[in-house]
Amino acid sequence: VIARIAPGTCVIDITHGIAPQNVLQGALVLADTLPYMPHGIHVAVVDPGVGGPRRPVALETADGRVLVGPDNGVLLEAAERLGGATRAVELTAEAYMLRPVSPTFHGRDLFAPVAAHLARGVALEALGPELDPACLVRVELPRSQVEPGRVQATVLAVDRFGNVRLNVGAGELAQAGIDAGAAVEVEVAGRRFAATVARTFADVRPGGIVLLEDSSRSVAVAVNRGSAARTLSTVPGQEVVVAARREDR
Amino acid sequence: VIARIAPGTCVIDITHGIAPQNVLQGALVLADTLPYMPHGIHVAVVDPGVGGPRRPVALETADGRVLVGPDNGVLLEAAERLGGATRAVELTAEAYMLRPVSPTFHGRDLFAPVAAHLARGVALEALGPELDPACLVRVELPRSQVEPGRVQATVLAVDRFGNVRLNVGAGELAQAGIDAGAAVEVEVAGRRFAATVARTFADVRPGGIVLLEDSSRSVAVAVNRGSAARTLSTVPGQEVVVAARREDR
Amino acid sequence: VIARIAPGTCVIDITHGIAPQNVLQGALVLADTLPYMPHGIHVAVVDPGVGGPRRPVALETADGRVLVGPDNGVLLEAAERLGGATRAVELTAEAYMLRPVSPTFHGRDLFAPVAAHLARGVALEALGPELDPACLVRVELPRSQVEPGRVQATVLAVDRFGNVRLNVGAGELAQAGIDAGAAVEVEVAGRRFAATVARTFADVRPGGIVLLEDSSRSVAVAVNRGSAARTLSTVPGQEVVVAARREDR
Repeated sequence: VIARIAPGTCVIDITHGIAPQNVLQGALVLADTLPYMPHGIHVAVVDPGVGGPRRPVALETADGRVLVGPDNGVLLEAAERLGGATRAVELTAEAYMLRPVSPTFHGRDLFAPVAAHLARGVALEALGPELDPACLVRVELPRSQVEPGRVQATVLAVDRFGNVRLNVGAGELAQAGIDAGAAVEVEVAGRRFAATVARTFADVRPGGIVLLEDSSRSVAVAVNRGSAARTLSTVPGQEVVVAARREDR
Repeated sequence: VIARIAPGTCVIDITHGIAPQNVLQGALVLADTLPYMPHGIHVAVVDPGVGGPRRPVALETADGRVLVGPDNGVLLEAAERLGGATRAVELTAEAYMLRPVSPTFHGRDLFAPVAAHLARGVALEALGPELDPACLVRVELPRSQVEPGRVQATVLAVDRFGNVRLNVGAGELAQAGIDAGAAVEVEVAGRRFAATVARTFADVRPGGIVLLEDSSRSVAVAVNRGSAARTLSTVPGQEVVVAARREDR
Repeated sequence: VIARIAPGTCVIDITHGIAPQNVLQGALVLADTLPYMPHGIHVAVVDPGVGGPRRPVALETADGRVLVGPDNGVLLEAAERLGGATRAVELTAEAYMLRPVSPTFHGRDLFAPVAAHLARGVALEALGPELDPACLVRVELPRSQVEPGRVQATVLAVDRFGNVRLNVGAGELAQAGIDAGAAVEVEVAGRRFAATVARTFADVRPGGIVLLEDSSRSVAVAVNRGSAARTLSTVPGQEVVVAARREDR
């Protein structure tokens, strides 16, 4: 669709691998990826509410990018990492859509064509009425709880390697007194696993469990040459407790 | 392969996700996608008969595109949506292939190089002897049966969201007297599920079953925020009956 | 990352489908694919030892390509098919990396940026100290054993069609006296399956097992219109014996 409206535009596919309806996963992948991407028109469509009351939007970030997608939270996390949304519009101008717009596939009929027209130089304000960026929808990220020797966390995402990303930053581990090299216990659904806080997978023996700062700067549970998601039998949304092992307190 | 023969050619990957040997799925995806693509040389390879008697072909459509692939039905559905095949040739000219041609990978050694040469301007007739377009192989699409208050259908395809596409158009539902908003029963292998005819996923509660016109204008069974294929335990080829619920007849 | 450092560079994605940590599979796919690719900077990252002592390297092949990746064997198989590695360097020059380099994602922070700088014309020797190409790490390929009427083999890889690639060339089958058309027995974990040596899938009836020379010129076990991996219940690394059937010896 983009190639027809804006031939010659460079289109880079970040991923088509977001789990169906997983807006949070889409939001995190977009937020982690955009800082490494050239400036551009960035389209993100994870859209379980397609055709319903959720608004289609485009927004401009403080660093001069444009993000296009449904106003369901998939865009805001990324916008905030890029300095925040400075302007936003609701996408209503049918002249920039494929008509008729399918009620179930706005990616094809609405978001991609709007992005292509933006790439050709159409102004944001031509696409529809302005919205207050402060009113755009945010994904709710679960909060972690830090106590001495213990962090109560939630699984945010599992990647294709089975690495289990927690809603915890390296700073929070340190705040709990859990530092690099520490022996910890990871508790999931009543089951406990011995793990080590380290830098990379190979810092533990093959099959061993490691807590590391992943490439998005979140704390992740990983298994050297294995899958932590499988070892821990865990899925996104589940609660995980990381605790210093008694002998270390 | 294309980048070596025709450097600088824009190559757009529609999908590498067709199920192995599923010529029908390939044919439907191609037919649904090409109307949204720029004019070009379109290669489609779902090719269980590779290296056997099925013919490798290229054809021209009434709207001026060229389709390249095995003559097993994967191309014709798309050609018909684009006005029909007006010319066709059997691909025999080895000068436009990689040699030796692997008996099991014509995508690499035959179809991709031929497409690249076409993109460079080689004429269709240089590729091999002309074929009568009327003799090209068609996929057999199962027929639906419409009665008052009831449509007997077949599952054509399941997408990665679990949406279940039927061999039914919105017109056929209407013909059976089943209109938007109707409460229906979907019967699969003796099991019955309550569903609603609506516009989009979010027209039913999360977990609810909806019958809608999908982005290819076929009737599909979907589950809001879920997978209809999983809910119905169904696969392509299975028979599905959609019937008005007794209280509505 | 490449698009930011070297805008306009043509990036071709060979695959993102290598199984996690499967260096051997990555090495084989790279070796099979590069001979069909235009000359370029070829990045391969299957990197279970990321951030540990394994060295990041770039090497030049006899035919003038540059390969970039971890020195864990993923590159060497391809280099050898292209005439061998003629020069190599350890990647240490931080000026050509994204900083800080994540200890768990060298693909993003080290290999992709180095490749982009190479594409812009940075010289190999600017990237770090020279290495002796003879010291680069090789993947260990299991050896097959050929006896009259019998080849003892190992499964090297299974593709997405379920074709089972063996560490056997067509020449070895011939050496064992097993020729095209021969009826053979394929033995896996004590289970025996009747198969035929042939040219392509369709040379046996649907569901039948065929031994053929695949597109990488290895012997593969395949099932016409099915999955040999499923039929044989086999996985990479498993031992497979191909034996002439008694009546044929």
